[in-house]
Amino acid sequence: MRDFSNDHSALALNTATLGHNVEGHGAGWSPEQVIDACAEMGLGGIVFWRREIGNRAPQIGEHARKAGLKVAGLCRTPFVVGPLAPQPRQAMLDDFEASIDMAVGLGADVLTIVVGGVEPGTKGLRESLGRVAETVARMATVAASRHVRLALEPLHPVYGGDRSCLVTLKDANDLCDLIGHPAVGIAVDVYHVWWDTTLPQELKRAGKDRLLGYHLCDWLADTLDVLLDRGMMGDGVADLKAIRQAVEAAGYRGLCEVEIFSAQDWWKRPPREVLLTCIERFRTVC
Amino acid sequence: MRDFSNDHSALALNTATLGHNVEGHGAGWSPEQVIDACAEMGLGGIVFWRREIGNRAPQIGEHARKAGLKVAGLCRTPFVVGPLAPQPRQAMLDDFEASIDMAVGLGADVLTIVVGGVEPGTKGLRESLGRVAETVARMATVAASRHVRLALEPLHPVYGGDRSCLVTLKDANDLCDLIGHPAVGIAVDVYHVWWDTTLPQELKRAGKDRLLGYHLCDWLADTLDVLLDRGMMGDGVADLKAIRQAVEAAGYRGLCEVEIFSAQDWWKRPPREVLLTCIERFRTVC
Repeated sequence: MRDFSNDHSALALNTATLGHNVEGHGAGWSPEQVIDACAEMGLGGIVFWRREIGNRAPQIGEHARKAGLKVAGLCRTPFVVGPLAPQPRQAMLDDFEASIDMAVGLGADVLTIVVGGVEPGTKGLRESLGRVAETVARMATVAASRHVRLALEPLHPVYGGDRSCLVTLKDANDLCDLIGHPAVGIAVDVYHVWWDTTLPQELKRAGKDRLLGYHLCDWLADTLDVLLDRGMMGDGVADLKAIRQAVEAAGYRGLCEVEIFSAQDWWKRPPREVLLTCIERFRTVC
Repeated sequence: MRDFSNDHSALALNTATLGHNVEGHGAGWSPEQVIDACAEMGLGGIVFWRREIGNRAPQIGEHARKAGLKVAGLCRTPFVVGPLAPQPRQAMLDDFEASIDMAVGLGADVLTIVVGGVEPGTKGLRESLGRVAETVARMATVAASRHVRLALEPLHPVYGGDRSCLVTLKDANDLCDLIGHPAVGIAVDVYHVWWDTTLPQELKRAGKDRLLGYHLCDWLADTLDVLLDRGMMGDGVADLKAIRQAVEAAGYRGLCEVEIFSAQDWWKRPPREVLLTCIERFRTVC
């Protein structure tokens, strides 16, 4: 397992941690301000959300690279299925392609997919997962031609109804097997998978080639809001060391991306305090 | 699969469905009023919560049996581990034994265990599950001597932090294997497991002897509160027919217990309307 106790060059910031992907939250820093602060503090990478980028993807990507940061990813495609997916289907496909374009513009080689919930009119996950497979297989060809990889992110089962019919790493592996395209992999976020005792075996099954991202935060024992009350690493009950050990045992050596949605706590603090805390926790408890 | 389209004698009411286990909710009917209404409407069984019973367990159990209802279970033991477990440990063990006494008094042959969350000072589920195994093994001997069986209920992973370090049927099967006592089995609640694509195989693994209860409600796609916003069967995204098919393929032939926590909807309706709706939905969508 890599030793991070005196080195946080493998730490990446997902800008959600500063509230920047939700209207009305965070300090309102521009992407450039965030990039400069991360670079100054010695982080290794950054991950943006589409709403922050507008039509400035090439400039922002360039600014990050000049500052010494890897643009490690872009959040995210539209929901592919479920009650929150864009309608009609062509609009969803167009938006999916636009998200690939933006990743290309930024120079991000990974685009995250949050697949969306249960298709209206159906029951259970199976049918929705089948439709996800169809769409992702189709878009994988587009992504591959532009040198972008697609990372399926299983979300916590609490989101199974509306946001993600993909709720376990096992199902993500099954979906990857079904799609069978080298441009499609998986992003693993401790918030979504910390409770899963099959994690080590499913990480091993995913392996180095399929693991495209590893996301950090913590699950607070007394979570007040499943969307916007994530914990800072060390403040919750996830066994972060054990999970990273399993992730690395599976071959992952990439950046570790801190992604904390925290409307009532971390998003109200000064960004520099948040970043310094992330660094300290990354070195000590992750 | 059993045909319930013209027969709801396999339907049991968990009194939580009428708000009766939470202070300030529901119509305030006495246990006897609930029993009489269920019997009049042709239900086959009833499951109580300890707070409704006080020191009247034998009378209430007798009333139910005279009315033709099976007392199918009692909710529940104290939390065994985690931040909400009674302290010190002896107080938890005493309360566990008191819950067995009450089940005996009621004539209920199944007592549900909600195991509690992650032990303070530990990370992840493993250590807490180990402590659960120790305590349940110890109490199984007491329960068996009094002809009560203990039903481990895996809760949805959203409760993993504070209410239940047992979050999947697989982990419940593993726990039963570890404990290895015939008085210990499992209760399966669709709210907690609907998202789990390994359900059919884990139900088969559990088998007839281990399956001590099957609970009905639904997962609303846009769940507002993970504790008190459960849906009526048919109003959500769980594939209730497929789940029951798998439950019965595993050999289960017992009662189906409707358990709906719904502070803003069903708990505000007249109990008779709620019961009639349960019956109609049981016959059509379960």
